[in-house]
Amino acid sequence: MTSKGRVLLAYSGGLDTSCILAWLIEQGYETIAFMADVGQEEDFEAAKKKALAVGAKKFILEDLKKEFITELIYPAVQANAIYENVYLLGTSLARPVIARGMMAVAEKEGCDFVSHGCTGKGNDQVRFELAFYGLKPDIKVIAPWRIPEFYNRFAGRQALLAYAASNQIPVQQTASKPWSTDENLFHISYEAGILEDPDVTPPVDMWKLTTAPEDAPTTPERLSIEFKGGLPVKVVVEGGKTYEDSVEIFLALNALGRKHGIGRIDIVENRFIGVKSRGCYESPGATILRVAHMDIEGLTLDRNVRALRDQFVTVELSRILYNGHFFTPESEFVRSAIPASQRSVNGVVRIKLYKGNVVVEGRSSDEGLYDEKQSSMDELGGFEPTDTTGFIQIESIRIKKWAQANIRKGQAGVEPKDVYGWRV
Amino acid sequence: MTSKGRVLLAYSGGLDTSCILAWLIEQGYETIAFMADVGQEEDFEAAKKKALAVGAKKFILEDLKKEFITELIYPAVQANAIYENVYLLGTSLARPVIARGMMAVAEKEGCDFVSHGCTGKGNDQVRFELAFYGLKPDIKVIAPWRIPEFYNRFAGRQALLAYAASNQIPVQQTASKPWSTDENLFHISYEAGILEDPDVTPPVDMWKLTTAPEDAPTTPERLSIEFKGGLPVKVVVEGGKTYEDSVEIFLALNALGRKHGIGRIDIVENRFIGVKSRGCYESPGATILRVAHMDIEGLTLDRNVRALRDQFVTVELSRILYNGHFFTPESEFVRSAIPASQRSVNGVVRIKLYKGNVVVEGRSSDEGLYDEKQSSMDELGGFEPTDTTGFIQIESIRIKKWAQANIRKGQAGVEPKDVYGWRV
Amino acid sequence: MTSKGRVLLAYSGGLDTSCILAWLIEQGYETIAFMADVGQEEDFEAAKKKALAVGAKKFILEDLKKEFITELIYPAVQANAIYENVYLLGTSLARPVIARGMMAVAEKEGCDFVSHGCTGKGNDQVRFELAFYGLKPDIKVIAPWRIPEFYNRFAGRQALLAYAASNQIPVQQTASKPWSTDENLFHISYEAGILEDPDVTPPVDMWKLTTAPEDAPTTPERLSIEFKGGLPVKVVVEGGKTYEDSVEIFLALNALGRKHGIGRIDIVENRFIGVKSRGCYESPGATILRVAHMDIEGLTLDRNVRALRDQFVTVELSRILYNGHFFTPESEFVRSAIPASQRSVNGVVRIKLYKGNVVVEGRSSDEGLYDEKQSSMDELGGFEPTDTTGFIQIESIRIKKWAQANIRKGQAGVEPKDVYGWRV
Amino acid sequence: MTSKGRVLLAYSGGLDTSCILAWLIEQGYETIAFMADVGQEEDFEAAKKKALAVGAKKFILEDLKKEFITELIYPAVQANAIYENVYLLGTSLARPVIARGMMAVAEKEGCDFVSHGCTGKGNDQVRFELAFYGLKPDIKVIAPWRIPEFYNRFAGRQALLAYAASNQIPVQQTASKPWSTDENLFHISYEAGILEDPDVTPPVDMWKLTTAPEDAPTTPERLSIEFKGGLPVKVVVEGGKTYEDSVEIFLALNALGRKHGIGRIDIVENRFIGVKSRGCYESPGATILRVAHMDIEGLTLDRNVRALRDQFVTVELSRILYNGHFFTPESEFVRSAIPASQRSVNGVVRIKLYKGNVVVEGRSSDEGLYDEKQSSMDELGGFEPTDTTGFIQIESIRIKKWAQANIRKGQAGVEPKDVYGWRV
Repeated sequence: MTSKGRVLLAYSGGLDTSCILAWLIEQGYETIAFMADVGQEEDFEAAKKKALAVGAKKFILEDLKKEFITELIYPAVQANAIYENVYLLGTSLARPVIARGMMAVAEKEGCDFVSHGCTGKGNDQVRFELAFYGLKPDIKVIAPWRIPEFYNRFAGRQALLAYAASNQIPVQQTASKPWSTDENLFHISYEAGILEDPDVTPPVDMWKLTTAPEDAPTTPERLSIEFKGGLPVKVVVEGGKTYEDSVEIFLALNALGRKHGIGRIDIVENRFIGVKSRGCYESPGATILRVAHMDIEGLTLDRNVRALRDQFVTVELSRILYNGHFFTPESEFVRSAIPASQRSVNGVVRIKLYKGNVVVEGRSSDEGLYDEKQSSMDELGGFEPTDTTGFIQIESIRIKKWAQANIRKGQAGVEPKDVYGWRV
Repeated sequence: MTSKGRVLLAYSGGLDTSCILAWLIEQGYETIAFMADVGQEEDFEAAKKKALAVGAKKFILEDLKKEFITELIYPAVQANAIYENVYLLGTSLARPVIARGMMAVAEKEGCDFVSHGCTGKGNDQVRFELAFYGLKPDIKVIAPWRIPEFYNRFAGRQALLAYAASNQIPVQQTASKPWSTDENLFHISYEAGILEDPDVTPPVDMWKLTTAPEDAPTTPERLSIEFKGGLPVKVVVEGGKTYEDSVEIFLALNALGRKHGIGRIDIVENRFIGVKSRGCYESPGATILRVAHMDIEGLTLDRNVRALRDQFVTVELSRILYNGHFFTPESEFVRSAIPASQRSVNGVVRIKLYKGNVVVEGRSSDEGLYDEKQSSMDELGGFEPTDTTGFIQIESIRIKKWAQANIRKGQAGVEPKDVYGWRV
Repeated sequence: MTSKGRVLLAYSGGLDTSCILAWLIEQGYETIAFMADVGQEEDFEAAKKKALAVGAKKFILEDLKKEFITELIYPAVQANAIYENVYLLGTSLARPVIARGMMAVAEKEGCDFVSHGCTGKGNDQVRFELAFYGLKPDIKVIAPWRIPEFYNRFAGRQALLAYAASNQIPVQQTASKPWSTDENLFHISYEAGILEDPDVTPPVDMWKLTTAPEDAPTTPERLSIEFKGGLPVKVVVEGGKTYEDSVEIFLALNALGRKHGIGRIDIVENRFIGVKSRGCYESPGATILRVAHMDIEGLTLDRNVRALRDQFVTVELSRILYNGHFFTPESEFVRSAIPASQRSVNGVVRIKLYKGNVVVEGRSSDEGLYDEKQSSMDELGGFEPTDTTGFIQIESIRIKKWAQANIRKGQAGVEPKDVYGWRV
Repeated sequence: MTSKGRVLLAYSGGLDTSCILAWLIEQGYETIAFMADVGQEEDFEAAKKKALAVGAKKFILEDLKKEFITELIYPAVQANAIYENVYLLGTSLARPVIARGMMAVAEKEGCDFVSHGCTGKGNDQVRFELAFYGLKPDIKVIAPWRIPEFYNRFAGRQALLAYAASNQIPVQQTASKPWSTDENLFHISYEAGILEDPDVTPPVDMWKLTTAPEDAPTTPERLSIEFKGGLPVKVVVEGGKTYEDSVEIFLALNALGRKHGIGRIDIVENRFIGVKSRGCYESPGATILRVAHMDIEGLTLDRNVRALRDQFVTVELSRILYNGHFFTPESEFVRSAIPASQRSVNGVVRIKLYKGNVVVEGRSSDEGLYDEKQSSMDELGGFEPTDTTGFIQIESIRIKKWAQANIRKGQAGVEPKDVYGWRV
């Protein structure tokens, strides 16, 4: 049979993508298996063997860890990115890097097609495919879980197992966990299975990365993080090591966070396709970084920049990342405002870690925007208190006018009506 | 000497406002002392005796606790109000209620003037005075700490003590703490003094409300909070009591939070007048409520409403509260959008408290916006996977066009240039 | 043949929906033809005859003009709704009313299906269908132009004409215009055909509603519009009539605008599906109302409310309307903020119309937010100029700190670097 | 008498600043008179003579026209800056350039003080002084109209005239206009005097720059404007000249706009100090540029970038400019996002000018984001109509869920309640 073309498959080594690999070959595609090392715990060698055994033409592994940190995680740290107030976007952040790795390989290997094992209901299919199209708009995507002849044929796990058996695909005998996970050096996610009931408390043995706060050390541990331009450039652990390399900084914060039970998240979130779903996440290092970065911004970032950045960059970049819109014009636009917001974010934050808590114990900076004398309640510090009288008078001009209008109309005064029903 | 007029003084019972009371009388004003009970720990009886002893015409105490909770705290809970990502606005929230209490008394008692002991550099002078003007635009404010003849005369604590001695003002002999505080049932604040160095770790004995996480119980405690319209209507403590009254709910959450070391905040924030200052806060019950409210919103609030509310109501209401703009047209405008955002926020959140951690263990609701079948990765649930293909195709139209334009101009492709300098 | 069920068809009387009517009957559906009177010029009687002749079970005409004005147009006027700075949303505004009219009929007539003649590339299919689902989530939609067996069969106008001939569908012999239109009492739209080249100037005889400015009267005409709560309640034409009924007000403004060449728009806009398209519109009365409403807001709306409303309500409501999201939670949320923003928008605007220009000649209001004495440059008016000094000093605190930091870092001073490349 | 120091005075040549010049000298300051050429009609030579005659140590004139256009006007054009939907910010835009010119001279000439003739109620005092402090935070400002000994002494025009007479200050005998103006190459403003009644129609002879639409040519004139990166780089007048220099382009558009009666504005606006005031403006060239720029953005700017830019950059930059916050961190932040938003804004707009109307007649671009085939209603153009079905189905998921919840709660359905009182 002549090849229908060459496919680059995002391969995980698991049952699903192994069956998809076999199926693609069966359909007449020449298939290359692709894996990205974004810091997940994985036996890449075993995956390679399996892919080649199933029939992949090639197995390509790309180490994207540094790119992942410096191109995706860092702007997210600078922007305090967070989705729906809770989720630190760990999976979302890895997708653009993996997609770009795949598109680069697809170009080099002459693949017209790309394929993946994402389901038809989740965010990842969207994130991958929009990233593919944003980089290589002529790429063709084969998404088996959205192709009726595939998903009808493999309607349950038994069908996949049977297909695996008949295709000599080795299957791990370990019982599958009653949830699915995605892991990288930023976080691990848990969803589906028993977690689909949002009122089910995750079992204690689900959490894989972090120690439970209950089991974390009873002695706090202290460290300091130095930021330059809003990015961590040095981590000093009290009585321990110093880290200055971008990957090592991240790994060190992860190790500390895992030890002290930091960064567990349990959330019902809104997927891009408009379905609510429940996810659990562990983001140990990212949680520490977030606390420290927001704190150093207090000392070094202008008030108005901070407010505008929070409304614009933080919310929009988080939505862009979550929805898989990293390679879009709005992403370029929003990210272009980050450097100007971080120019002054330089300084050191001192942190205490203790049983799930990230406690800021102090911070310092040479930026000079904080002025003890000026803020002091105990001295004038070059301050004319009468200026504040003028300030308040001017600030009150429109407020007085409005109050006068309300009083004249009988719509206000010292006993306001219960306009919004908040009085109980 | 004929009276210059009648002044209503915001009286605290402390050295400053006692001296101001004496000074106002000395200046020829008939002065009434006003105190508000907003849940602070205070010996109101002693304050009354002192005020009358110093020469106040009257002492008026108003219990504003319920009003404080239902009119200020509740909308802040509904809106997830927070200033600069960290501060829960405890002091800001109390000011409008106190100001309204004062204006009501000023009207009843025929006071043309109102006075307070706020310094000329802080937020509270602005919050009080803008609230006064927003309710009673013809009120006249006497702010001694901004009047040169006052602040020059009483340049340090010694001058105040001498004035107190010569005016028979009783002074507590306890050594003053090296910081100042403001307390109400929502929180306590600490600022000034030794805290003015942002790198000084607050001493362990400063924290007054909450147990240190290190000293908190080693056994977690569990409770559930039921929300209706985004407001807590029932708290059930596992193996304990049930609370349904608005004040009791808040007090119960406060007690639980204090016991388990929850709600400590240490921040460098931007005052309205543009000066950075360092504040420490304890908001135990508010922290629990915030976590629970944001969680139940995940289950019951529409994605687009949530995103718009976060950008608009949360950020703007928080700024309005912090800057003392509660009685303004923009405050009325922003708050008017809250009820529509909370109509569906009904359900129960199960919480675990443990050594500073507020952990959501599950949540449930009858709203029906979460649909296990629909989000499930294991079944189709009335879902056509092919629809998602269409969705992604349509979503990618403008992204592909943009990518094609970039490729044509040599400005994109699989190896993007390092536009923003984020590659390390 | 047994009926497959009952369909309510959005019928226009034209070739497309007449063929769809015949085709639906051919497919075995019992079909009811629905028309909405939203103010378009139309021979409803002829349409009825035609529909019944083709085989419709019933023809139902609903007069939705008043509802259209008061429920859709009025909030859009209050919010100054506009899409991409130019388009006044005339078609978008009519869709929710028509959709609701259809759903009410569908319920009454027991129709499980609803059908329309919208193409598969436009906005209207989305607007109609999302409105259907937002009102009656179990409705089933038949969109023939997205059904391959339909659109492949009727690939061009000739195929439709042939089908019409073979089904005794009367076809108007007038040559079809080289563009398509949609009309209601708010506007008329022109798109497609020769307009698809965005550099083609629309032919002078395309514009149907308005006189060309070149041909408009050489004498200006004057009128006044009175607003209450941001809504027009009285229009007085100088030397002419007075209008107070909501529909009559709109029709009068339309007549005046048409006469004076007002409200022509030519735009390349972004459809919801992500395709750019060119549209021309005439919105005579709406353009006059918009100018007048924005002007009276200058006199009567608080600055901060205006700014927040512009950022939040105007932009979001316009997007909601354009994208067909009127019956959604975010629409309810955003619209809930409108009344509080319009409470003070009361007063009269005097307008001159002349050859395409809507000129404000004056405005007045009893609200009292404008104070001649206060704004006057010629008198103090209860104003202490020294207050402004204090205001500026306080406003400059953070700016000076920032300038000092920049100077210290060599990043500023009186000769700023050309950071963004704007110096030519 | 020893000098109190050296003052740089923003000198206009008029009565006010001439008296201020004399008064500063009288107070013991060595005073240098500064004028900026920002394109206003002015006899600079006469002003120089007068300043030196009154006693200025020096007269310094700086030509800031090019800087004004390229550094201030161009970003405003790129961002479609507009204040309160109407005012194009002509005065606001000139202030930062003038302030920087003054600070550069103050440094060179060793002036510790700077002075101006702005009143204590307006915007310009704030704009000037915040700009001074943002560039040279140690500068000291002398604002006579806010100094009681000055404004009480010179309480009316008569007092100034008397002072002028006694100080040999030559006064023009022309009757002063009953309003005040500010002029530069972007616009002219009129305010105060008879304009303080917002219901007074400006007299026809007030408008100085533009022909009245009634008196403008009866023949339209056509031109094309080419944009690169959102900036005008070439203007071709049909049957006329071509302009490519930044200043010449602006002057040419101004001349065309003036001739055809374009750019008159009459508005009640909100000053930064919270006072409403009435202003009239003429911005002929700016109005043409604005229409053309917004139009070319339709063809070349991504939808999501446009929406975000409108909400964030346009509104915020306009507020920043109006309030005099150009040299602030938030200004740097907001402007940093402009280039990424304008990268694709390249193309040509064809314009017709006629009696106050700026009519777009067509536009073209090589960017390739517009695709006739794709938007065409007449052909498929690589478009799968079934994709849109999927898109709508996915888009409707959350809307259906919400509608179902509303129906279950009796809060919705085809006959919605009149929640907001909009039904008349």
